[in-house]
Amino acid sequence: MAFKVVTRGFEVRSGGEDEVLDITSDVREAVAASGLSDGVATVFVVGSTAAITTMEYEPGLVKDFPEMLERVAPKSGIEYEHQRRWHDGNGHSHVKASLVGPSLSIPFVKKGLALGQWQQVVFVEFDVRPRTRKIVVQLIGE
Amino acid sequence: MAFKVVTRGFEVRSGGEDEVLDITSDVREAVAASGLSDGVATVFVVGSTAAITTMEYEPGLVKDFPEMLERVAPKSGIEYEHQRRWHDGNGHSHVKASLVGPSLSIPFVKKGLALGQWQQVVFVEFDVRPRTRKIVVQLIGE
Amino acid sequence: MAFKVVTRGFEVRSGGEDEVLDITSDVREAVAASGLSDGVATVFVVGSTAAITTMEYEPGLVKDFPEMLERVAPKSGIEYEHQRRWHDGNGHSHVKASLVGPSLSIPFVKKGLALGQWQQVVFVEFDVRPRTRKIVVQLIGE
Repeated sequence: MAFKVVTRGFEVRSGGEDEVLDITSDVREAVAASGLSDGVATVFVVGSTAAITTMEYEPGLVKDFPEMLERVAPKSGIEYEHQRRWHDGNGHSHVKASLVGPSLSIPFVKKGLALGQWQQVVFVEFDVRPRTRKIVVQLIGE
Repeated sequence: MAFKVVTRGFEVRSGGEDEVLDITSDVREAVAASGLSDGVATVFVVGSTAAITTMEYEPGLVKDFPEMLERVAPKSGIEYEHQRRWHDGNGHSHVKASLVGPSLSIPFVKKGLALGQWQQVVFVEFDVRPRTRKIVVQLIGE
Repeated sequence: MAFKVVTRGFEVRSGGEDEVLDITSDVREAVAASGLSDGVATVFVVGSTAAITTMEYEPGLVKDFPEMLERVAPKSGIEYEHQRRWHDGNGHSHVKASLVGPSLSIPFVKKGLALGQWQQVVFVEFDVRPRTRKIVVQLIGE
């Protein structure tokens, strides 16, 4: 089969700070639509106050994960230099996003992503207001 | 040379919580066996309570890295929502795994991985019991 | 168009601990010079005491991001096992580097990286002295 790059962008609308959205089906659909059998899916969020990772998507962890990050980069009680310069109230959002990271690489084989049964691809919103976000899923393979 | 995708899965048996295993030789062998010269190696752990990263694999850091994460997501003293719902005692394991992340991308050139001399590819077990884990190494290149 | 792998290494000289350098233009130049239109850029730092991520590169966050990590892995006040064994004063540098991670994958389309306007690719030095670092940018695509 021929090698191909297939890039698909889609938008998500986040409800606001610390929302975690399951985007696994979007990645699966991109693989299915690509016609590719084997390769790598790169999932990338555009912007500097959101992140991509995997987790077991269930209502408990959807709270626990942001709470862990609140301990690391609290919204209040710390003077962020970003805040002193820009006054947009999201210094903590930025540092959390840089820590978790914007990209994820997932192999797929015979059109199936190498995810575990309890492992979903998630988008995490760290900004302090609802945002429309662009996520890029790019597939390279054959 | 022709472009190829070569995917290889292997299993590791972890001894339990916070064990760090050096899997560099597995990645190296996958590159050697692929016949590829230049490309990217994607290393991905299947499951939501383990992670992949790089470190200098020596007995000190193998303790220091999990201890840092214990400060971020302590096993005791924090009420995890995951625990309240599922009672499996591993809420802290999940959030640490999502933070470190399940995937790593390493370029290789002339069959050699772009790792430093003191930089190994490691698997980190965060779950509270020994687990058999599947790791996928996928090579794309020519 | 034909599929290709193009690998480019370059060096950065860091000024010392916690310095954050914007390397976006290096990645852009690698894409431009490759002749490739669509594919994935893998950015990888060689070594175990530095990391790659994205952030809005401005003077505030350049301080806030290392300060967050200092809370997670303080330079003083914690006895690192790495220090007890090697006495090189950089146990905290190692664990921070493993947490943030050495690799980043960014899709590019029509020669343009999928970065946001306020999202730069950054190198972060965690070691306790200035270092000359090798960064690998590898492009795979067509």
